[in-house]
Amino acid sequence: VREDEFQVTFQPWNRTVFVLAGTSIPEAAARAGLIIDTPCGGTGTCGKCRVQITQRASNPNEVDHRTFSGEELRCGWRLACQTAIVCNLVVHVPTASLFGGDQQIVRETSVAGRGEVLPSIHKVYVELTPPTLRDSTADLLRLEMKIGSFQTDLAMLRQVPRRLRAHGFKGTAVLSDCRLIEFEGGDTTNRCFGVAFDLGTTTMVASLVNLRSGRELAIASRMNPQVVFGDDVLARIKHSSSCAHGLDQLRRVVVEESARMIQALCEQTGVRPDDIYEVVFAGNTTMQHLLCGIDPSQLGEIPFAPAYARGLRLPPGELEMPINPRGVVYVFPVIGGFVGGDTVAGILATQLDSMDGPVLLIDIGTNGEIVLGHNGTLWAASTAAGPAFEGARISCGMRGTRGAIEQVILDEDVRLGVIDSVTPVGICGSGLIDLVAELLHHGIVSPAGRMLPSDGLPTGLPESLAKRVQQDDEGHGRFVLTDAGPDVATKALALTQRDVREFQLGCGAIRAGMAILLRKAGLSASNLETVLIGGGFGSFIRRIHAQRIGLIPWEIDHRRIRNVGNVSLAGARWALLSVKARERGEELARRTQHVELSNDADFQAEFAEAMLFPDQQTYR
Amino acid sequence: VREDEFQVTFQPWNRTVFVLAGTSIPEAAARAGLIIDTPCGGTGTCGKCRVQITQRASNPNEVDHRTFSGEELRCGWRLACQTAIVCNLVVHVPTASLFGGDQQIVRETSVAGRGEVLPSIHKVYVELTPPTLRDSTADLLRLEMKIGSFQTDLAMLRQVPRRLRAHGFKGTAVLSDCRLIEFEGGDTTNRCFGVAFDLGTTTMVASLVNLRSGRELAIASRMNPQVVFGDDVLARIKHSSSCAHGLDQLRRVVVEESARMIQALCEQTGVRPDDIYEVVFAGNTTMQHLLCGIDPSQLGEIPFAPAYARGLRLPPGELEMPINPRGVVYVFPVIGGFVGGDTVAGILATQLDSMDGPVLLIDIGTNGEIVLGHNGTLWAASTAAGPAFEGARISCGMRGTRGAIEQVILDEDVRLGVIDSVTPVGICGSGLIDLVAELLHHGIVSPAGRMLPSDGLPTGLPESLAKRVQQDDEGHGRFVLTDAGPDVATKALALTQRDVREFQLGCGAIRAGMAILLRKAGLSASNLETVLIGGGFGSFIRRIHAQRIGLIPWEIDHRRIRNVGNVSLAGARWALLSVKARERGEELARRTQHVELSNDADFQAEFAEAMLFPDQQTYR
Repeated sequence: VREDEFQVTFQPWNRTVFVLAGTSIPEAAARAGLIIDTPCGGTGTCGKCRVQITQRASNPNEVDHRTFSGEELRCGWRLACQTAIVCNLVVHVPTASLFGGDQQIVRETSVAGRGEVLPSIHKVYVELTPPTLRDSTADLLRLEMKIGSFQTDLAMLRQVPRRLRAHGFKGTAVLSDCRLIEFEGGDTTNRCFGVAFDLGTTTMVASLVNLRSGRELAIASRMNPQVVFGDDVLARIKHSSSCAHGLDQLRRVVVEESARMIQALCEQTGVRPDDIYEVVFAGNTTMQHLLCGIDPSQLGEIPFAPAYARGLRLPPGELEMPINPRGVVYVFPVIGGFVGGDTVAGILATQLDSMDGPVLLIDIGTNGEIVLGHNGTLWAASTAAGPAFEGARISCGMRGTRGAIEQVILDEDVRLGVIDSVTPVGICGSGLIDLVAELLHHGIVSPAGRMLPSDGLPTGLPESLAKRVQQDDEGHGRFVLTDAGPDVATKALALTQRDVREFQLGCGAIRAGMAILLRKAGLSASNLETVLIGGGFGSFIRRIHAQRIGLIPWEIDHRRIRNVGNVSLAGARWALLSVKARERGEELARRTQHVELSNDADFQAEFAEAMLFPDQQTYR
Repeated sequence: VREDEFQVTFQPWNRTVFVLAGTSIPEAAARAGLIIDTPCGGTGTCGKCRVQITQRASNPNEVDHRTFSGEELRCGWRLACQTAIVCNLVVHVPTASLFGGDQQIVRETSVAGRGEVLPSIHKVYVELTPPTLRDSTADLLRLEMKIGSFQTDLAMLRQVPRRLRAHGFKGTAVLSDCRLIEFEGGDTTNRCFGVAFDLGTTTMVASLVNLRSGRELAIASRMNPQVVFGDDVLARIKHSSSCAHGLDQLRRVVVEESARMIQALCEQTGVRPDDIYEVVFAGNTTMQHLLCGIDPSQLGEIPFAPAYARGLRLPPGELEMPINPRGVVYVFPVIGGFVGGDTVAGILATQLDSMDGPVLLIDIGTNGEIVLGHNGTLWAASTAAGPAFEGARISCGMRGTRGAIEQVILDEDVRLGVIDSVTPVGICGSGLIDLVAELLHHGIVSPAGRMLPSDGLPTGLPESLAKRVQQDDEGHGRFVLTDAGPDVATKALALTQRDVREFQLGCGAIRAGMAILLRKAGLSASNLETVLIGGGFGSFIRRIHAQRIGLIPWEIDHRRIRNVGNVSLAGARWALLSVKARERGEELARRTQHVELSNDADFQAEFAEAMLFPDQQTYR
């Protein structure tokens, strides 16, 4: 741990992160994958982001005094948005303070509406009266009278009578929707698990959930192994038809990686794979096609029509998932060829459709998906942002894992926040946004995206920063973050001119898409009530930086911008926990209008415009 | 063809039988598996049994004159019940004259209520608009908009997009309930078939049906190969647990025989097995358990609770049926441990529940199933009649196939009706009933079932009959039907005292069951408005004989007794053709009260009583 970094542990989640001094608690929590909700934009007016700091809590400020009682303040209750981290801390975060917190524990919070909160898989312990001559009702009908009607398959039907008798007509029935899939001796209702997947083009994230309590037990994140076949969606589509086994290669690697992730989650938590009854996948349309082994070639050609649109319920065997073979795999519905289940999950998790005023969701990944909601209408588009925000195509880029620079501050010199506080090995998306914003701020990069030469730097730039601006052998500029270490393994890390260009393409695509959607709705950026920024696990985009680089229009008050974290995963998890949520997802997928940007005459012009960073003066 | 026999061919069914002179047309038709409906009991008052005799029609009688116009009479139209066969004939039988005729052609007759008549499998030819940039709706959704929502599996999903494109977005969708199971190029709507099975303990019958027209294309009948493991239900149950492979042995032989029957039907008609999408099985509870490989041992022990009660929808692969692998096998719901899907099918086919007045259905097979309907309530019981009525356990018994004696008249001598008019090789159920009734009538068998000795025969018995009464080496009586032929293969055929006892057991069981059901309903036999006699393919029980042997109480006017043929098969076929009928069957199975006779204190007393044949004097 470096001098200017502090260790923060979030309970009861037991997740630890290291942050630079002065970092806010919501920002630190986001790096731990916990999105603390700040609907008021961090102004301290809504009082929603309550946390408890059990030791060394800083003195409460005025806002804290207005929000909490004296007793609460003494116990360390503070508003997260009002608290900067200036020492090592242990922070307790109540579920109610999390974004979508009530989705994560649907079963616990909503006792009244049982139908509302039941997962598709559900276990019931029953004690039946054994048959007699007076009542020789068939075994299955006897069970049905207790738990409601169900269907079953022949294999189950052959086993149930024996199992009923072996266990004295007592045991646990496992139902998947209206299908009886197991009958286990004794009461096993507490052993019921599911896994939700955010299946990204670059990153895969899986969450193991207790389907009874709704609690997340563990999370796993991996690189999508398909990246070796191409780092964006179109490259994958191309590969799938490049050779006879192309499609199967792509399918196999992602299926195998998913299986390994489930196994890892089981090992980590001691959950038996047979007690996992359901897996939910949310990914973009191409990822979902590949996962299912459906030829995606039509997604690479005009008019980009997907094979299917409604969600799929599949036997685990068909997708080779190592869970209970009688369970089910649910693959999210898609909106269109380029707007897939991940976006549906995002809309579902944010409840975008029922928010007041015009609202925009930007989900930043390899594709930048944008959803605009206004007066009950939803528009969605996908932009080929490229994987820069996930660290790919950037010379020193990496995913947000151990050793990634995730925060950059340029003042007298460079200050870096590194995941797990180790020697940095690369830079991830949020660090990159910081860095580019800071370079723009200091005039080292021009609004056109040009890295100024050493002899053209603004006057007054601290020497320590100026000397980091260098040129490679071909005369291309670069900004050095760290020097090479004494050992060969530790390379110098620098942002190159080419990296900036890649970054501009990504920002420009998202910004242009946003402009097209706003125009569809007859709105301008200043009309937006709320902007939600979603992204991968642990990502936290500093709002002011997102505006400085032009990812979010400067006309929007930064308090209206909220980080909502990995909404694809949150939506997938919600669908895992609630059949109603799943039905809602199906409905949202059909309701949302797919805006095909390549089809839009204005897009190229908007894109060219949006490539330029906003003029520095705007922020003075 | 013997002198006193005539050949009758029924059109358009193209079925030929040989009958004794004087046989009525309904009786001859029944032997050909065609049940001509005679709701008035053959008195000529209802005018329902209209047939056309194109050549050598006998002169119309008074009733015909009242029923038909002069032109119709000239064209050979007659009432079947009024016409005795006295020469070779070709008889045209309109579907409307058949029992349940409107069920057999549900689709043709009921144009209005499409929902009423659709089979669970259904083919739709579609022409879709190919996707464009303006409308890039997903392939499956595009199809759904045309044919309504459906589910599908991954294998189909992988194929449909390619097939749509290969066939220019035109082709035939095959739906099984709400599941898309095929998409074929071109219009294949006329290639859609199903098979209905009556799965009896002794006899299996299968009917190949065109699911579009509702027409039966061919029928096949075989011995249930499980008979080698025991000739009744209890023997089969015992065998299933007698060794490790007992259950699988029983399952395998019946599955393989069913498969062979389907193949034979295909070969006979030129239908491709892949164009058969559905198979429906109706059998007793034990037969259905064995077919599905469900351990039936609990059906052999108190309290005889079956494993399942509701109908089963299974993939053809699970039952190894050689039809389209994406099709479906439906196994009928059961009422209880001894009253199974065959009885449900029988109630369905006869519409017993909606008939006026108290009505009784007796389905004569290895088990005698009895159903009583009264004021909307249904009671059902099964009696262990034994396989005597199907020719088993009778020394010279056989099924009703080529060479079986199916009609016996004793006057000056013995006159025999033989199936296909060949040298007789045995006697089947209807022949047996005739024979015993005639022996009772001539006083050769006493009401107690004793075959009188040669020296104790009634006076006035023709010598030709008297000399047929013989005694074996142990002094047991027998009645000789045919002598041994000159070749070794042609054995003498005779009814033994032991055969009569076996027959008494069968009659007594059914008669006692009937008495118990009537008592449950607070009725006596004379209250019955209608008695329906069902049985295997081609069986026709002469009503007066059925009363003479006490199978049906003498108090009932014989005009109230109707032969309804193989109602299990008719019900199975109807369920194949109509989802509504299938739902109705499910409902009837749950509505019908299962009367467990072994549980009834009065049954043994009734049984002992019913073993006695009615006193001869009753019929004088």
